[in-house]
Amino acid sequence: MTKTDIATRVFNHSWKLDPIIRSLIDTDFYKLLMLQMIWKLYPDVDATFTLINRTKTVRLADEIDEGELRAQLDYARTLRLTKKEAIWLAGNTFYGTKQIFEPEFLAWLAAFQLPEYELSKKDGQYVLNFHGKWKETTMWEIPALAIINELRSRTVSKNMGLFTLDVLYARAKAKMWAKVERLRELPGLRISDFGTRRRHSFLWQRWCVEALKEGIGPAFTGTSNVLLAMDSDLEAVGTNAHELPMVRAALAKTDAELLSSNYDVMRDWNRLYGGNLLIVLPDTYGTAAFLRNAPEWVADWTGFRPDSAPPIEGGEKIIDWWQKMGRDPRQKLLIFSDGLDVDAIIDTYRHFEGRVRMSFGWGTNLTNDFAGCAPREIEGLKPISLVCKVSEANGRPAVKLSDNPKKATGDPAEVERYMQFFGTEDRVEQAVLV
Amino acid sequence: MTKTDIATRVFNHSWKLDPIIRSLIDTDFYKLLMLQMIWKLYPDVDATFTLINRTKTVRLADEIDEGELRAQLDYARTLRLTKKEAIWLAGNTFYGTKQIFEPEFLAWLAAFQLPEYELSKKDGQYVLNFHGKWKETTMWEIPALAIINELRSRTVSKNMGLFTLDVLYARAKAKMWAKVERLRELPGLRISDFGTRRRHSFLWQRWCVEALKEGIGPAFTGTSNVLLAMDSDLEAVGTNAHELPMVRAALAKTDAELLSSNYDVMRDWNRLYGGNLLIVLPDTYGTAAFLRNAPEWVADWTGFRPDSAPPIEGGEKIIDWWQKMGRDPRQKLLIFSDGLDVDAIIDTYRHFEGRVRMSFGWGTNLTNDFAGCAPREIEGLKPISLVCKVSEANGRPAVKLSDNPKKATGDPAEVERYMQFFGTEDRVEQAVLV
Repeated sequence: MTKTDIATRVFNHSWKLDPIIRSLIDTDFYKLLMLQMIWKLYPDVDATFTLINRTKTVRLADEIDEGELRAQLDYARTLRLTKKEAIWLAGNTFYGTKQIFEPEFLAWLAAFQLPEYELSKKDGQYVLNFHGKWKETTMWEIPALAIINELRSRTVSKNMGLFTLDVLYARAKAKMWAKVERLRELPGLRISDFGTRRRHSFLWQRWCVEALKEGIGPAFTGTSNVLLAMDSDLEAVGTNAHELPMVRAALAKTDAELLSSNYDVMRDWNRLYGGNLLIVLPDTYGTAAFLRNAPEWVADWTGFRPDSAPPIEGGEKIIDWWQKMGRDPRQKLLIFSDGLDVDAIIDTYRHFEGRVRMSFGWGTNLTNDFAGCAPREIEGLKPISLVCKVSEANGRPAVKLSDNPKKATGDPAEVERYMQFFGTEDRVEQAVLV
Repeated sequence: MTKTDIATRVFNHSWKLDPIIRSLIDTDFYKLLMLQMIWKLYPDVDATFTLINRTKTVRLADEIDEGELRAQLDYARTLRLTKKEAIWLAGNTFYGTKQIFEPEFLAWLAAFQLPEYELSKKDGQYVLNFHGKWKETTMWEIPALAIINELRSRTVSKNMGLFTLDVLYARAKAKMWAKVERLRELPGLRISDFGTRRRHSFLWQRWCVEALKEGIGPAFTGTSNVLLAMDSDLEAVGTNAHELPMVRAALAKTDAELLSSNYDVMRDWNRLYGGNLLIVLPDTYGTAAFLRNAPEWVADWTGFRPDSAPPIEGGEKIIDWWQKMGRDPRQKLLIFSDGLDVDAIIDTYRHFEGRVRMSFGWGTNLTNDFAGCAPREIEGLKPISLVCKVSEANGRPAVKLSDNPKKATGDPAEVERYMQFFGTEDRVEQAVLV
């Protein structure tokens, strides 16, 4: 017997919008930690964030309707922190620290609105920029990416029948569960969800997070998504990202300032947060240069997050460096977070087992892996390598080199200048799939 | 086209239980305020709560399956305060007061579990008692009532077809909305949801609360249901109830202690909470006796909640008393909460308009009014007058007289003794429908 809830159905029919971003805290936790730092130390710095689609073969502007994109971006701009969210941010313990967010910061955040955006099309791609104060534009990164990625999924599912959709999700669930079963075999594994920006959809990310919670239990150490952490009583995880050294370097007026920019950011970070949050992100201008120039105290930080080198190779170099600095790697933590699939997680885990503490941040391959799930291969379901990076700070170009030349961003001439300055040893070119 | 979500459907089929109580804070806010007071001032007092079905014609033990009732009560005992709830209770502002709950109290509440229950059948009724420390048994009142009321609804809906159900809820929604439209005509109305204990179901209460939020806007001043207040960013409302003076009176060892018991409770309350929470509940042993014996300072409290006298008559007596005590009623608040329907709300509002501040606590008639909604009249959809009252404190009988003799509870001989002691002037017998 068919049951139709008339009220719901009519309501759905007249929906103007099915919002992709439902909350201001539907974002990565590290954005909030960084935001507090930016709000405190760089309140007047301007920063432009720019969308970059590295998968040029996918013509986003042809795939996604501009009106829908604008409607989603506009809706996100209507969001404000809810009372419940503000209370939770104030009252929850993050990384063992109470009141990690200052009351003044939370008061400011309560009135926060995503700033305006600038959208046009060029060569089949969207040109999407966020100009303004860094403390405002930074908050666009995750919702902008999540919106575009989910609009891609929706474009595909619009053309699918109900049974096709049903089978699609059934297969995706089965596929996900097979991963859970493999991960269960790793004793002492620590893995968390880093998949907000690249997710297939909000609802699918939530399903994956809940599946991990039930499937691997304590090995699932949390989610970077603040909203899901709150709603599912999970730990919110994540520390910091490239934008901090990128802006600091862009603002540098001398070579000495440029050379110390990454370490200066870390000094500030240590003053603000310390403890479990002292995770080094070494690859902004190449890990080799970072380690070569690093002050002694960098070796005292809790761990490293190699984010663009191949995990085993990158991890070994950091372990070598710790040993050279007289530190015991078994007391140290490596966080792997770059394009991991289950094979890479297992290989990396087995390789380093017993030699160093490890943790995995699982992104695209957790929340957007539909390969083989549709009845026929559908291009629109393949994740793309989409990022939203700071491109300018106070009008000066911002650059990221990374350990993989294909992940470099910024004006080519400026990238060249940075490469001359920091050197290019140990950079390994790898295809950037996601 | 029919779409069946196989996973969901199979999951639903194998559900052991569809829980009625989903959270420890799915209860009335005033229970938490009272609980903190009991925990602080009466930690070792024993109190028994007893279910009383005043609607004797409804044979609950015949209507409701004992196994289902036990399963629901047992499930409620598995609930613990979640982290999110604890954080919200600590961080939210209630009645303009921050941190109304002490950290030590919240730490204790975090480990709280509903205590055991004692269930048997007699003469077609359930005999349901909660023995133990007052600070534990008090928390059963609301969930026990909500469970039995929703089990009654479910018993009815089990025998209804899908279209019948669809029409039932459609009519109930239309009926509710007609009330909303009438209430909109009262400028400056202040009304809140007091309907947790008598609700048709949790989901229906939530619908009603959300309908009021959208329908009457700022005139809807909140809900007594803590969970709904949290989830819908509404004010949690409610102050105190009869159990406080009832236990205090039961513990009284002398006539002097008995006479002052209600006022002693109020003195403690004032020390603990003060301000907007100073609402007098005058009818435990009859409002006339209460006013006759009241100390001068009672007139300084913010307002009165007459809970068993007819609203206009009861309100006039309190206004008279304020005037006699030299207070301006226009500065005072009357909270009406006894069995209100829309007619009574409008009549009362029009009667007192401009003479006193008013607020309405809307209960059964808000969250359980299905009269005329089913295709034919169904007895099981009529709300019954079900309460769960403290019956003993430290082994001594507890009694409530109220302004309506039909709402008196307790051992008949003891009720008689209290009537002799407090007098019976001005009591008005009214049918107790809900």
